Amino acid sequence: MEADPSSSTGQHEDDFRAAPPEDARQTAMSGPLNIRGERRPPPMQRAFSRQVSLGSGVTVLGMDRAGRNGGGRGQRALPRSGTSLGVLNHSGALGAAGGDGAARRGDFSMFRTKSTLSKQNSLLPTRIRESDLDLPTHVEDQSVGRPPAEDPLDKSVPAGRYFAALRGPELDEVRDYEDILLPKDEVWPFLLRFPIGCFGVCLGLGSQAILWGALAASPAMRFLHVTPMINVALWLLAVAVLVATSVTYALKCVFYFEAIRREYFHPVRVNFFFAPWIAAMFVTIGLPRAYAPEPPHPAVWCAFILPLFALELKIYGQWLSGGKRRLCKVANPSSHLSVVGNFVGAILAARVGWAEAGKFLWAIGVAHYIVVFVTLYQRLPTNEALPKELHPVYSMFIATPSAASLAWAAIYGSFDAVARTFFFMAIFLYLSLVVRINFFRGFRFSLAWWSYTFPMTTASLATVKYAEAEPCFASRALALSLSLMSTTMVSLLLVSTLLHAFLWRSLFPNDLAIAITKDRQNGAVKPSGKGKRTSKRVHDIKRWAKQAPLSLVSSITKTNSADKEEEEEKTE
Amino acid sequence: MEADPSSSTGQHEDDFRAAPPEDARQTAMSGPLNIRGERRPPPMQRAFSRQVSLGSGVTVLGMDRAGRNGGGRGQRALPRSGTSLGVLNHSGALGAAGGDGAARRGDFSMFRTKSTLSKQNSLLPTRIRESDLDLPTHVEDQSVGRPPAEDPLDKSVPAGRYFAALRGPELDEVRDYEDILLPKDEVWPFLLRFPIGCFGVCLGLGSQAILWGALAASPAMRFLHVTPMINVALWLLAVAVLVATSVTYALKCVFYFEAIRREYFHPVRVNFFFAPWIAAMFVTIGLPRAYAPEPPHPAVWCAFILPLFALELKIYGQWLSGGKRRLCKVANPSSHLSVVGNFVGAILAARVGWAEAGKFLWAIGVAHYIVVFVTLYQRLPTNEALPKELHPVYSMFIATPSAASLAWAAIYGSFDAVARTFFFMAIFLYLSLVVRINFFRGFRFSLAWWSYTFPMTTASLATVKYAEAEPCFASRALALSLSLMSTTMVSLLLVSTLLHAFLWRSLFPNDLAIAITKDRQNGAVKPSGKGKRTSKRVHDIKRWAKQAPLSLVSSITKTNSADKEEEEEKTE
Amino acid sequence: MEADPSSSTGQHEDDFRAAPPEDARQTAMSGPLNIRGERRPPPMQRAFSRQVSLGSGVTVLGMDRAGRNGGGRGQRALPRSGTSLGVLNHSGALGAAGGDGAARRGDFSMFRTKSTLSKQNSLLPTRIRESDLDLPTHVEDQSVGRPPAEDPLDKSVPAGRYFAALRGPELDEVRDYEDILLPKDEVWPFLLRFPIGCFGVCLGLGSQAILWGALAASPAMRFLHVTPMINVALWLLAVAVLVATSVTYALKCVFYFEAIRREYFHPVRVNFFFAPWIAAMFVTIGLPRAYAPEPPHPAVWCAFILPLFALELKIYGQWLSGGKRRLCKVANPSSHLSVVGNFVGAILAARVGWAEAGKFLWAIGVAHYIVVFVTLYQRLPTNEALPKELHPVYSMFIATPSAASLAWAAIYGSFDAVARTFFFMAIFLYLSLVVRINFFRGFRFSLAWWSYTFPMTTASLATVKYAEAEPCFASRALALSLSLMSTTMVSLLLVSTLLHAFLWRSLFPNDLAIAITKDRQNGAVKPSGKGKRTSKRVHDIKRWAKQAPLSLVSSITKTNSADKEEEEEKTE
Repeated sequence: MEADPSSSTGQHEDDFRAAPPEDARQTAMSGPLNIRGERRPPPMQRAFSRQVSLGSGVTVLGMDRAGRNGGGRGQRALPRSGTSLGVLNHSGALGAAGGDGAARRGDFSMFRTKSTLSKQNSLLPTRIRESDLDLPTHVEDQSVGRPPAEDPLDKSVPAGRYFAALRGPELDEVRDYEDILLPKDEVWPFLLRFPIGCFGVCLGLGSQAILWGALAASPAMRFLHVTPMINVALWLLAVAVLVATSVTYALKCVFYFEAIRREYFHPVRVNFFFAPWIAAMFVTIGLPRAYAPEPPHPAVWCAFILPLFALELKIYGQWLSGGKRRLCKVANPSSHLSVVGNFVGAILAARVGWAEAGKFLWAIGVAHYIVVFVTLYQRLPTNEALPKELHPVYSMFIATPSAASLAWAAIYGSFDAVARTFFFMAIFLYLSLVVRINFFRGFRFSLAWWSYTFPMTTASLATVKYAEAEPCFASRALALSLSLMSTTMVSLLLVSTLLHAFLWRSLFPNDLAIAITKDRQNGAVKPSGKGKRTSKRVHDIKRWAKQAPLSLVSSITKTNSADKEEEEEKTE
Repeated sequence: MEADPSSSTGQHEDDFRAAPPEDARQTAMSGPLNIRGERRPPPMQRAFSRQVSLGSGVTVLGMDRAGRNGGGRGQRALPRSGTSLGVLNHSGALGAAGGDGAARRGDFSMFRTKSTLSKQNSLLPTRIRESDLDLPTHVEDQSVGRPPAEDPLDKSVPAGRYFAALRGPELDEVRDYEDILLPKDEVWPFLLRFPIGCFGVCLGLGSQAILWGALAASPAMRFLHVTPMINVALWLLAVAVLVATSVTYALKCVFYFEAIRREYFHPVRVNFFFAPWIAAMFVTIGLPRAYAPEPPHPAVWCAFILPLFALELKIYGQWLSGGKRRLCKVANPSSHLSVVGNFVGAILAARVGWAEAGKFLWAIGVAHYIVVFVTLYQRLPTNEALPKELHPVYSMFIATPSAASLAWAAIYGSFDAVARTFFFMAIFLYLSLVVRINFFRGFRFSLAWWSYTFPMTTASLATVKYAEAEPCFASRALALSLSLMSTTMVSLLLVSTLLHAFLWRSLFPNDLAIAITKDRQNGAVKPSGKGKRTSKRVHDIKRWAKQAPLSLVSSITKTNSADKEEEEEKTE
Repeated sequence: MEADPSSSTGQHEDDFRAAPPEDARQTAMSGPLNIRGERRPPPMQRAFSRQVSLGSGVTVLGMDRAGRNGGGRGQRALPRSGTSLGVLNHSGALGAAGGDGAARRGDFSMFRTKSTLSKQNSLLPTRIRESDLDLPTHVEDQSVGRPPAEDPLDKSVPAGRYFAALRGPELDEVRDYEDILLPKDEVWPFLLRFPIGCFGVCLGLGSQAILWGALAASPAMRFLHVTPMINVALWLLAVAVLVATSVTYALKCVFYFEAIRREYFHPVRVNFFFAPWIAAMFVTIGLPRAYAPEPPHPAVWCAFILPLFALELKIYGQWLSGGKRRLCKVANPSSHLSVVGNFVGAILAARVGWAEAGKFLWAIGVAHYIVVFVTLYQRLPTNEALPKELHPVYSMFIATPSAASLAWAAIYGSFDAVARTFFFMAIFLYLSLVVRINFFRGFRFSLAWWSYTFPMTTASLATVKYAEAEPCFASRALALSLSLMSTTMVSLLLVSTLLHAFLWRSLFPNDLAIAITKDRQNGAVKPSGKGKRTSKRVHDIKRWAKQAPLSLVSSITKTNSADKEEEEEKTE
């Protein structure tokens, strides 16, 4: 795209004229698996309809860029085609990206796994030069003179950088003054657009399978006469999605390990690395009783808990002793995901018969839950990530006490005072979120949304257990209504996901969050008025993140300090 | 008062000459209930004696203003007459305020309920002009040219503004560089001087009634041979005071709803909005057993807990997701009041037989208690409200664990390990406060003090329950001594309140905290030396409150930003 | 030393030439108890060998000073002789310090107890003048004109000052731009070099005695066939060391009370003031059962718990209501020491039969443990003391939950869910520290290290109790391996201590942390480049500590503000 003159002039019409061939390419990419048969609308009409359809999940990235580009780069419509939709069409995308497509357009090879990376990333300085057109000549020379190799990617991105460059409750939108490493106006290879948050689908489906199993089996809910078949169907679906997601992400791990490293350093995304193991445990817990009456073997528990436990040791250690990733800065509602795994593991441990291991995990979970709960409730001034308006991510608050309640009941065999205390906490937090009227404001669908359904399901599950312990009309009604709510939510998301996947073909937008530059590179070339505002914001952030804006002119000295900070993070 | 030439010249003698008619008006206001018969001293002598009587509750506002007004407005003695004292004489005050008195003196109509407000508040710009005498002409024109209607009051005051303009552990004193909307040197209408903190009296008396009921009924304290009559008498008194306070505050709600909104946005006062419902539950719990042997109907519990619960959802939601009112900023010892209601509600739930509802409330309470306890103990740098020296407000620390202990014992039927842990926490915190020698330094009586007695009473009550569970000499002695201490405290406060009401007639001073300006308006007209200090302080506060000083010159742009902030708060 | 021309010229060779007589003096000081018989190496060789032996505990203070002194004061080798080694040779050191040695070299009398202090501290202004050689004359006159009496020491040092002047996880190293009150290049009197941290030895040995007693007596560990004699031997050793340390510190209390006050105001050291009483309780708990079958008398418990409780009231009160020593600033891992005493006291209370008192202490402990745990985990930006890299001080995290677990089991008679939750928390934190590879980086031995062994021992002890409750292979293997680890650690430390004491004679280096100046006095005389960096750092610290750098020129006004801050702290 850099060589494309229509893009560099940046005119509206040019972009629309440029759209058709791009769409055609996309169609080719998704090639063999393109199973749709309906007539596609003409591209111009599609682009407009997508711009208008707020609330249906289409990001309006053009707004971000409109404020930034005075005249040079113009208001281009967003030509995100999203033709490559599904879970299984990565081969086509890979082929396109690995072939001549990558050379002509964006340089995606820098996110490739290091071992498979040849010296083909020489395109990178070109991009830097292109994005800083009005830079003085000696700066360009300097940037050319530098060793062009792994500069922007071979080092981890410090936590403060993510907060500085991204925004939104999921830190998935790029601030308007930020440049990114990959072209925004091009569809990236499918694997690069496949975020770790996709495991949220497995979380949502796996917990639903457990819920419907409990509804079918629980004596308290017998009046519903739920057939166990729903459980079986959901469980099969959950397993299928989990396997597909795992395989895809494993491929990303093989081909684009650098992108995964960037997701790992992302303050929100890192918590989603717990999701695969939690989802696997959900699936194990939700195993239909009719077909697997005996409890699973403890080795299954070990296989799923060990990676989770190792990750936990790493993350909690960063909170406690880490340099930059101290809890008071990185805490956000998705941090609950890093705690809830303990409780899910404790439930599974009780299921396989290792009660003491369950108590161990429960103790770890409750200790860190208190820390995370208090920290999030305090909303320390260092917590910049928390948005003002409510967002589905807040539903994470429900997940942990619900799971803690279930785990305690599973380990100790009765829904006693401790289990009830956690259960009622979850119910209150649930209520507290439900009464907020603007709960769903700013509805921008993404696959991570699925992760926000499993708290509702876990709460429903805890209510079913509570209704077993206290069988009365109120408890049963609560269990029923919560179950219906969570199932409705999951159904809505399922429909929405299918619509995005097959109709709008926008299920996997470009994952901008992983492509932020390690340093701000456009600080030196902005006009003064803009620069002043920028530097003010940077100053605010710097107070906690100690992340200075790096101009290319002073890149040599600054890089040293950045290296040091990063080294600090590496030694954590 | 704006039209009064004696006040605008601001001479000392003028004020003293103006005092007699004001006193006369006050006497007329308190009209039918003025039961005192003693000879009143001449006004000059009274003003001086009140200036001297520190420690008896008279605020020396003149000191505040002495530092601020160089020469123009002079050192006037404080002509706060306080003649209108009682609970029931609001009709006279209302009549005076609504009649010609208001037009001649302060403009109290801006605190009126919006629906009852005609277009009579055109006096407001006059006051602004008077307070900014040396402003350039075009600014005056601007202020006149603006729509003069609800400018200073139709919007909520942001939380940071309260911290910026007020001081003291209860945020009830106006900083010396601040101007307020209502005249300081005039007695306001009674209802405007009737703060929400008055419900503290009901808290103190209601808990005393429970304590004496427990002392009379508890087998552990049988050796005292306490007659149940004390319980009955205290209970009747508590009910009478609660009814009177509620009626009065309801009247304030009807006539001066804007003042109540300002109390609601006050970071300390907002917690006292829990007090009426807690007091009502205290009264229900303290119902003398001899006359009402069967437990109250659950509907009573519902009636009292529902408003409390709704308020709780609102307040906790602000902590968790709110824009400016995040817990790390607004936390102060009175935040315990917003937690303790859960435990009192749990006790009442156990009394009416709804143990599960009690467990629900207990779980909410303990979750938020941990958050508040940790936050207050940490004393985050964002907590500006906490004073260095100890203050009765710290006794709130005792209330919550005591109530948690009682509630657990009431719900689960035995004073077990959990109840004892909370009980001993309360005892330690009690001891921790008692050993501080300067506990009572800065004794400045206000009705809110009553709220600080109920923690002592609750602790005594918990000790009585503990003595039942562990009947030995030490526990009985502890129960006896704590009961005596709390009763002594309540008696002292009762005497003090009566003295302030009937002798010194200063029970209800002007409630300055609700009359702060929404924006600092005197920033533009101060001399430079003063302005620099002011702006420094503002800068400190701004770091957390993002509240800029607004000069009238830049009012148009600034108002927009202020609107935005406020809108943020409204959407919480 | 001030009068010594060799030091004021500051040449390297001069210092080495000056070393032999100093060594000779040290030999004389340690006089009668000098029991070593080996040939000492020549002093030059010894100084070098000590500079090289990193990892063996020798501080390389010369590095600190090398960066600071441009040319004037030179790179002197550190002639820390450390000849006075043992526990019992303080009399000699005292004699030397009290005699002519003090007058000729450092002026140690300012740390003397006030009552025993004559007017001999007139040397102080001389030192100030010497350290500010290039100050203008009128400033010198001023410093001479001031009353020279107790200026740097009669007031407490504010907490912020310690953070500003010291560094390291134990705040025991002086920052390189700081000057101290006592000469660095001279061996101080023994008592001044005997820090409160020495009680850590008693903690380590006392807990080991308990552990070996439990290993010998526990039915779960019977397969080890541990002889009770190890318990007896360790117990006797622990008692001996405790008595010796207590006597020595009591002597320091008598002769150098000012130094103890400075240790008390030290944010890390203050927690070690809990150590003597905890150690005494350890010794009482570890009493060999064979010789003392019946439980100790409750009076013993009272004797040990009362001072601990009083200190606790003081320290927790400072956290809660204190001016500058708010928890969010002074919290550091050693704060666990101030909490763990409650649990140890609860264990002893259960042993003597006062279960209710134990519950009382347990409740206090758990309440404050939650606060400390959350605060430390959050790593608030105000916590400057926590180092990035791990350090033995982090082992304190293990101590408190282990002790809480043991205490709960001791009080309530069974290792139930609560005890297990705390136990598993401790195990996880243990594991979390063990897996950090750079756990032992920056190994710089000091006697305070001993305090870091007792958490490991406590965790082992809790594991033994757990193995009693859950007798299986895994629990026994865990108990055995943890016991071995802790015993290995203690043995290593014992060897290391003996080596430092008798071979390297560096067990008690100069305790620089207590000799920091109350105000920064060298700010005014630095060159500009240096001064800028300094003022930047100071500015960072000032944000929380409000501690301005004091130049002598503005000393009059500034002293007032410093007095005020200090007064604030005194009234806490």
